[in-house]
Amino acid sequence: MNETQTPPMESGDLSQRIKDAVGAGDAERLAGLLDPLPSSEALRELLMLVPDERDRVLELVPVELAAELVEEAPNEMAVELVERLEPERAAEILEELVSDIQADVIGELDEEDAEAILSEMDEQEAADVRRLSTYADDTAGGLMMSEVFRFTDTQTVGKVLRELAAEDEDFEQYRGQHPCIVDQNNRPVGVVSLRGLLTAKRSELLTSIMVPPLTVPVDMPLEQLEDIFDENPFLSVPVVDADGVLVGVVMRSAFTDALLERSESESLKRQGVVGDELRSMPLWLRSRRRLAWLAANIVLNIIAASVISAYEETLAAVIALAIFLPMVSDMSGCSGNQAVGVTMRELSLGLVRPIDAFRVWVKEVSVGVINGIALGILIGLVAWLWKGNPALGIVIGLALALNTVLAVSIGGVVPLMLKRMGQDPAAASGPLLTTITDMAGFFFVLSLATLMMPWLIS
Amino acid sequence: MNETQTPPMESGDLSQRIKDAVGAGDAERLAGLLDPLPSSEALRELLMLVPDERDRVLELVPVELAAELVEEAPNEMAVELVERLEPERAAEILEELVSDIQADVIGELDEEDAEAILSEMDEQEAADVRRLSTYADDTAGGLMMSEVFRFTDTQTVGKVLRELAAEDEDFEQYRGQHPCIVDQNNRPVGVVSLRGLLTAKRSELLTSIMVPPLTVPVDMPLEQLEDIFDENPFLSVPVVDADGVLVGVVMRSAFTDALLERSESESLKRQGVVGDELRSMPLWLRSRRRLAWLAANIVLNIIAASVISAYEETLAAVIALAIFLPMVSDMSGCSGNQAVGVTMRELSLGLVRPIDAFRVWVKEVSVGVINGIALGILIGLVAWLWKGNPALGIVIGLALALNTVLAVSIGGVVPLMLKRMGQDPAAASGPLLTTITDMAGFFFVLSLATLMMPWLIS
Repeated sequence: MNETQTPPMESGDLSQRIKDAVGAGDAERLAGLLDPLPSSEALRELLMLVPDERDRVLELVPVELAAELVEEAPNEMAVELVERLEPERAAEILEELVSDIQADVIGELDEEDAEAILSEMDEQEAADVRRLSTYADDTAGGLMMSEVFRFTDTQTVGKVLRELAAEDEDFEQYRGQHPCIVDQNNRPVGVVSLRGLLTAKRSELLTSIMVPPLTVPVDMPLEQLEDIFDENPFLSVPVVDADGVLVGVVMRSAFTDALLERSESESLKRQGVVGDELRSMPLWLRSRRRLAWLAANIVLNIIAASVISAYEETLAAVIALAIFLPMVSDMSGCSGNQAVGVTMRELSLGLVRPIDAFRVWVKEVSVGVINGIALGILIGLVAWLWKGNPALGIVIGLALALNTVLAVSIGGVVPLMLKRMGQDPAAASGPLLTTITDMAGFFFVLSLATLMMPWLIS
Repeated sequence: MNETQTPPMESGDLSQRIKDAVGAGDAERLAGLLDPLPSSEALRELLMLVPDERDRVLELVPVELAAELVEEAPNEMAVELVERLEPERAAEILEELVSDIQADVIGELDEEDAEAILSEMDEQEAADVRRLSTYADDTAGGLMMSEVFRFTDTQTVGKVLRELAAEDEDFEQYRGQHPCIVDQNNRPVGVVSLRGLLTAKRSELLTSIMVPPLTVPVDMPLEQLEDIFDENPFLSVPVVDADGVLVGVVMRSAFTDALLERSESESLKRQGVVGDELRSMPLWLRSRRRLAWLAANIVLNIIAASVISAYEETLAAVIALAIFLPMVSDMSGCSGNQAVGVTMRELSLGLVRPIDAFRVWVKEVSVGVINGIALGILIGLVAWLWKGNPALGIVIGLALALNTVLAVSIGGVVPLMLKRMGQDPAAASGPLLTTITDMAGFFFVLSLATLMMPWLIS
């Protein structure tokens, strides 16, 4: 191969070639460019196109590749990709996916779009998806798929082996599942292990080698599924409804994906982004969502600033205080946020619960006192040396020390309080904490300054 | 059963009973209390004890239960639990765990502690752990375990079935692995599927039903493993060294755990907690780590505040500006952090790379302009109405609008820049962004006020 004639395979170059292929409507060339990429890269390339081009790609490429792209996309993105397509094409693509992903996408669509797509799908499959999309996201029902590797209590080991040997194209969807045995009312009565299957005679009844099944109710929340998957090495858990009837199976992979999504989504919310934003979303949606959070925050900021307003005379007398006000509030906010972060982590690891608030408070006060003293001395020295005013150093240092203790001890407890009140600690802890530490910080600096005024202006 | 005589099973009560059992050195009672709990709850109870009591628990309970607790603990906690034990007991506990967890713990211990424990372990096992603990954490080597379900290319299907039927107690550790076939040099030549095993004759050679293996090199980083596990439904991937020799296997579960840990750890770092703190860690360690980050931050704060110091005259003339300084810097910081959050998420989803910085910048400028105008008008009106001064409204509103555009566009790009420079975007983006937006915010407010002074004081 003559390497000098091969154009460089830079990312920018590939993107251009994809754009060209889309423009030319060349399905084959497009598939040739996207198919060899790992799906994450292919998705990245797709998202770099404008929406109309994205639609063309999903229409042109083979349906398996389109399905791969939709599957790779975070859910809110998958929904956006699918809702722009003709219902017929959308249905074709969705039919390539397993039922839990189908339901995630369908569940997020407008009712009208959803119905248009469902009516193009296989009737049985559409019914499954309708049912699955009614369950709440972070429950066993929301995470399960309806494809269960299911046998009845009258069948034999040989039946399972014949099914496996049948080269049924749908076999892949059962990967990681052990055969689940149900009675005539479709209630799980046992599961069969791989080892059981391999070492039993073909003529043996499945009931003679099965072990009692561990099942979970359809409304079990993610937190409890964590305990189940933690305690047991199973790759999947059968899900039953209120009557004990088998309705699906939660795969360990769907469960871990949900954990990871929750972690990412909480992390975003802590930075003031509610609603899992991606840059490929429409501009007005991104702006509006961010603004909603910022507007609430501006109100909290005004409340905090009103403390400064109450002390304008003190400020006018010692203008240097204005330099240190943002510093004290910012540093305390940072200290408090560290404590919030540790509590959020311990919450997600299950190491702490709302009932432990007092224990957490005690632990944080100790850190707060040590760090408050250290930071107070540091900033006090800075203020003294900078402005040549020892009293200013004492005011600022003392204010930061006090506010650090307050911020750290409140920061550790705020997420637990919010959780107990049924609020979302990830989204609300930061703004709540910052408002309190801003107000307290301004108050400490300005009231201490008022008290020490004679020394400050001497 | 007479319910009135049963003591209430509150958490506090259970904790007290555990404390009592530890105090009495009653191993049986202790195991009876801890064993029925899900491991996350049992670990929670353990962490509520003081360190000496924790040691006693791990010494008293059956070794399987102790191992369960160590396995459940986040790694930095597991290390702390183990290093306090007698080497003999520590070795006993570690021997219950699979090799990748052994290596994670041993790798974090002081060399002296590690050697003391290793010398008490089975020689072969100790050698494995020594080898595994040399690999970097987030690589295939760091994630793999050395227990491979391995067969040679001269063995038959029957051999695998006999091995499975042997009820070997170690069988559990291979769960989720497909048999891996190696040549006489221990190089992988194929893997056998479950279906292949179940549908082949016992006398058939494994080589006749195997498919070519997908292997990964021992130094493959987590990001690339993501592509591998994304593209393929495998539950495990064999790992080879530079000579192509089979050295271990990365389980999908170890891989997803690593992803989740990375996400949690980044989330903590974004809030200024470096080093995966848990409250059960020693106070001085927690304080010191948090202080290190805060002390760096205080320096950045001083730099930003020096901007205010340069405009003391302006401030003295219009003292109301001091009320709005923290507000403008805080609001812009929040806007910028939203953009940081979205970029961090897109980085971890693999949807954006450092090379895309310009594209991200363009996308963020649009959001920045819209939100800047909206927030600028909002805060401008507040300033005008609050202080009855329209010129103040214009100064503050314009400053916030400009600074929002700056903050949002810089915030989206900062993590990409840091990543390109080989820095950790999770830990450094926030402080870097805040310093820039603080300085710029103070500058915009105070320089605009200086320009508009005649109207401000009229």
